[in-house]
Amino acid sequence: MSTNESNETLDRFYLRRLELSDKSKGFIDLLQQLSAVGSISDEEFEERFHELASRGEEHVICVVEDRISRRIVATGTVFVEKKFLRGCGKAGHIEDVVVDASARGAKLGKKVVDSLVEHARLLGCYKVILDCSMENKGFYKKCGFEEKAVQMAIYF
Amino acid sequence: MSTNESNETLDRFYLRRLELSDKSKGFIDLLQQLSAVGSISDEEFEERFHELASRGEEHVICVVEDRISRRIVATGTVFVEKKFLRGCGKAGHIEDVVVDASARGAKLGKKVVDSLVEHARLLGCYKVILDCSMENKGFYKKCGFEEKAVQMAIYF
Repeated sequence: MSTNESNETLDRFYLRRLELSDKSKGFIDLLQQLSAVGSISDEEFEERFHELASRGEEHVICVVEDRISRRIVATGTVFVEKKFLRGCGKAGHIEDVVVDASARGAKLGKKVVDSLVEHARLLGCYKVILDCSMENKGFYKKCGFEEKAVQMAIYF
Repeated sequence: MSTNESNETLDRFYLRRLELSDKSKGFIDLLQQLSAVGSISDEEFEERFHELASRGEEHVICVVEDRISRRIVATGTVFVEKKFLRGCGKAGHIEDVVVDASARGAKLGKKVVDSLVEHARLLGCYKVILDCSMENKGFYKKCGFEEKAVQMAIYF
C-alpha cells in the first residue's frame, strides 16, 4: 500500500462502531458540538449504550477515531423503522451526524454518512432519510440525498 | 351526555390502538392513500404487528374506527428514539398519518396527531418531530408544530 496523503488520512481516521470506552475518548464532547448533551454519568452512558446495542443491526452508531489523538472526531447514527407501508418495508433514519471542528476538511462527514446509507441499504430499507438545516443541504446532496419534505417539530 | 353534533362525532369516531383485526377493517386500504403498500398476506401483517407491538409504549399506532361503517378511517404512528443527546434523552417521531378521503372535515387528523404528540410528551420525550409536504405545513402548524429543518432522502 502506498503512503500517499489519502492513504495516510485513511489510516489516521478509523471508522468503526461506538464502543463503551468512547465516552473517555471525547464522544460526549463531540455530541455537544451538535446539540446540548448535559451531564451524563458513566452509569447512564453504559445503560443507554446497552439499550441501543440490544437492537443490534437496527440501531448503529458509527464513530471515527483519530489514531493520533485517540479522540472520537466524527459520529453518526442510523436506525431502522419497521412499517406496514411498502410491503411491510423498512425505512432508515440517519440522526446526530457531527464532525469535530478540528477535523473538518478531511471528508469524515461524508465517510460517516456513506457508511450509514450503505448500512440501511444492506438491511433492505426502501429509503433512508434525515433532517438537516438549510446550510447543510449541499453537503447531503453530495452524499446522494435529495430534498424531499419539510421537518416540523414541537419542543416540550 | 347530550346528543349534539360534536358528541355524535366523538361517539362515531373512536380513537384507539391498532388491533390485529384492523387489516379486515380497511387499515391497509387507508395506508394506500398515503403511499404504496403493495400486497401483504395475513401472516406478514400478523408478524409485523407483533414485532411492533413488542416495543410496547415505544412504538404506538393509533387508528380511528368509524363505528357506523366499522372501517378504519384515520391512522398515525409515533415511535421513540433513544439518544445520548439531551442527557440520554428521547425524541418522538411521528410517521404515516393519513385520514380516509371520505372522512375529511371531521378533524380526525388533528385528533390523531394530538394523541401522538401527547403520547410522546407523556413518555418524557424532549421533542416530537415529523416530515411533511409543503401543502401539509399549515395543518401541522394548527397542531402546534413549527417548521424546523429540511428532510432529505435517498430512495433505493
